[in-house]
Amino acid sequence: MKIGILGGGQLARMLALSGYSLGLEFIILDPSKEAGATGLGKHLQGQYDDPTLLAKLAEEADVITYEFENVSAEATRFLSQHTQVYPAPNALSIAQDRLQEKNFFHQLNIPTANFATIASLEDLQQAMTHIAYPAILKSRRMGYDGKGQVVLKSSDQLAEAWDAMQGVASIVESFVPFQREISIIAAKRASGEIVFYPVSENIHSQGILRVSECCKNDGLQRQAEDYVVRILTALDYVGIIALELFDVNGKLFANEFAPRVHNSGHWTIEGAETSQFENHLRAITDLPLGSTEAREHTAMVNFIGGLPLTERILGIPHTHIHLYDKAPRKGRKLAHATIRTGDFAQYSQSLQRLKILAESTDDS
Amino acid sequence: MKIGILGGGQLARMLALSGYSLGLEFIILDPSKEAGATGLGKHLQGQYDDPTLLAKLAEEADVITYEFENVSAEATRFLSQHTQVYPAPNALSIAQDRLQEKNFFHQLNIPTANFATIASLEDLQQAMTHIAYPAILKSRRMGYDGKGQVVLKSSDQLAEAWDAMQGVASIVESFVPFQREISIIAAKRASGEIVFYPVSENIHSQGILRVSECCKNDGLQRQAEDYVVRILTALDYVGIIALELFDVNGKLFANEFAPRVHNSGHWTIEGAETSQFENHLRAITDLPLGSTEAREHTAMVNFIGGLPLTERILGIPHTHIHLYDKAPRKGRKLAHATIRTGDFAQYSQSLQRLKILAESTDDS
Repeated sequence: MKIGILGGGQLARMLALSGYSLGLEFIILDPSKEAGATGLGKHLQGQYDDPTLLAKLAEEADVITYEFENVSAEATRFLSQHTQVYPAPNALSIAQDRLQEKNFFHQLNIPTANFATIASLEDLQQAMTHIAYPAILKSRRMGYDGKGQVVLKSSDQLAEAWDAMQGVASIVESFVPFQREISIIAAKRASGEIVFYPVSENIHSQGILRVSECCKNDGLQRQAEDYVVRILTALDYVGIIALELFDVNGKLFANEFAPRVHNSGHWTIEGAETSQFENHLRAITDLPLGSTEAREHTAMVNFIGGLPLTERILGIPHTHIHLYDKAPRKGRKLAHATIRTGDFAQYSQSLQRLKILAESTDDS
Repeated sequence: MKIGILGGGQLARMLALSGYSLGLEFIILDPSKEAGATGLGKHLQGQYDDPTLLAKLAEEADVITYEFENVSAEATRFLSQHTQVYPAPNALSIAQDRLQEKNFFHQLNIPTANFATIASLEDLQQAMTHIAYPAILKSRRMGYDGKGQVVLKSSDQLAEAWDAMQGVASIVESFVPFQREISIIAAKRASGEIVFYPVSENIHSQGILRVSECCKNDGLQRQAEDYVVRILTALDYVGIIALELFDVNGKLFANEFAPRVHNSGHWTIEGAETSQFENHLRAITDLPLGSTEAREHTAMVNFIGGLPLTERILGIPHTHIHLYDKAPRKGRKLAHATIRTGDFAQYSQSLQRLKILAESTDDS
């Protein structure tokens, strides 16, 4: 069976690496000759909306998936007229637009921050009369890793903030005074089976994920599962989904969802019985899903912009590295490492060392 | 860093799959266009003793390893004049010759079955006056999966048995009345560090491995480690080694060693903190070795000659599949599956189901 992937970065790379053992082949559309996944399958080099390449992908692939949200929903709709596309284009188009996404959460009675849609400075000034400071102005579309976002602390910043958005359709959200940022990753198979991973606690800095720690037996696991099931059901979803949530005194507020494998689930490669990558492939090929149980104490640390020597990373006990074969560039995710061990003291110590090592080469 | 591999079958495939995350690239010499690993790196298609291809491999690869013993030791000696070859050619040439191998075990005071070297029917008749029946006549070279072996039950079989060997240099060994066949897998890094996996108990049938069960805290672990360290030290070895042993009332007898990743270690992909494949690559690139701790209850089952539907295999709880992308052929290893779970009752039940499923399509 041949899996088409839109995007050939690290997520496609880890999907392909986990798919070989399932007997799957890959065909990858990506504009870059050097994309890290392209050695793992047939590479169609070109733009994501190139009609000739999309037609070729649709013809050759039995199932198509994507590794990031910023591929055009129209392209996936075109593909879905010719072959299976999972997750379905409607999930993608909601996730691509922060306004649609927030409205969707509300329809499902999933709490979110207060928000308003913004198309002008007047909209923003009006909205901020009933939304509390601090707040965040975000472009509705094409945002990731904190890009296209401005923090608003007081009303005298509004004009400058709106200026910075360069007129793009936006939303403003009040800042959620969270104790923790967590995410839940779930998978739904075409024939209906759903599995949930334990939630992870995520540490961001400058909008970029730095550390995810798996939280076994977390008190909010059930609440998170309840919310993600509503989304999976409403969208008739197939594949892995990641739902990012804020924990405010034990009550969860949805931030956003990603219709794909997710950075906060990279710990599952070593830390769970079945990785998110394998379960995504099992889900979209309608195979029985694998157990999502977490193994021992496990966490993931991202390497941003720069990389320590591999031997320094692997010199930290119980550490595994995943290099993405990407050239260093400021603020770019180049690799991650995971820790997994049954010894909590060793876990804490290794995690601390790994964080310090990652910070030493982090240029963001 | 670029790793050259002689052989592009399932062992090379699993090596390459585990090496991408370490940032390694692969160049693979294999005569077959369809070899399962060739999609995972650059493929040099041709014979293992083709001087042009060997020169190309030596030029392009930073380190060279091999996935099976039947590659010519001369080829590896040629390669080692130009680049690093691990494990070193002397380990390979000993492992290729059952007589040298047995003599080597004796030099290291590692017990074996009684044996004698056989070059004629007279040698065989003479040997069987002091070696007990049942015994096994084996070709000295090129044997695997039980090929080139004849069981001797009485003296009236000797002429026919020797006839079947077609005159090739052989040895005869008395049959070891073992309670268990076990193996130990160890890794040694160029700079000296050694790690051991827990021994596994192996079930063979018709000379082909069927099932390996990881034996955590086995009473013979220390004895097995002691023997394998003698080999690693004597050979100044680098990489993964597998030592097959017979357990006779708690005393171990060496059967053979393999200077490579080994079928009885496939459970380590899911069942150990670091797989044998990753540790082989860490060892030959002189990176810190990963923890070899076994996770929970874990076992591996081979699929020989035929394959059940993937969904039937994955429908057994806690099961992972590894397909080798090989065309079915009588007696050929096509895939393996592993089980890993902390629940012993579930483990036993899943293993039983998996064995029955594997037998249902086994044509050997």
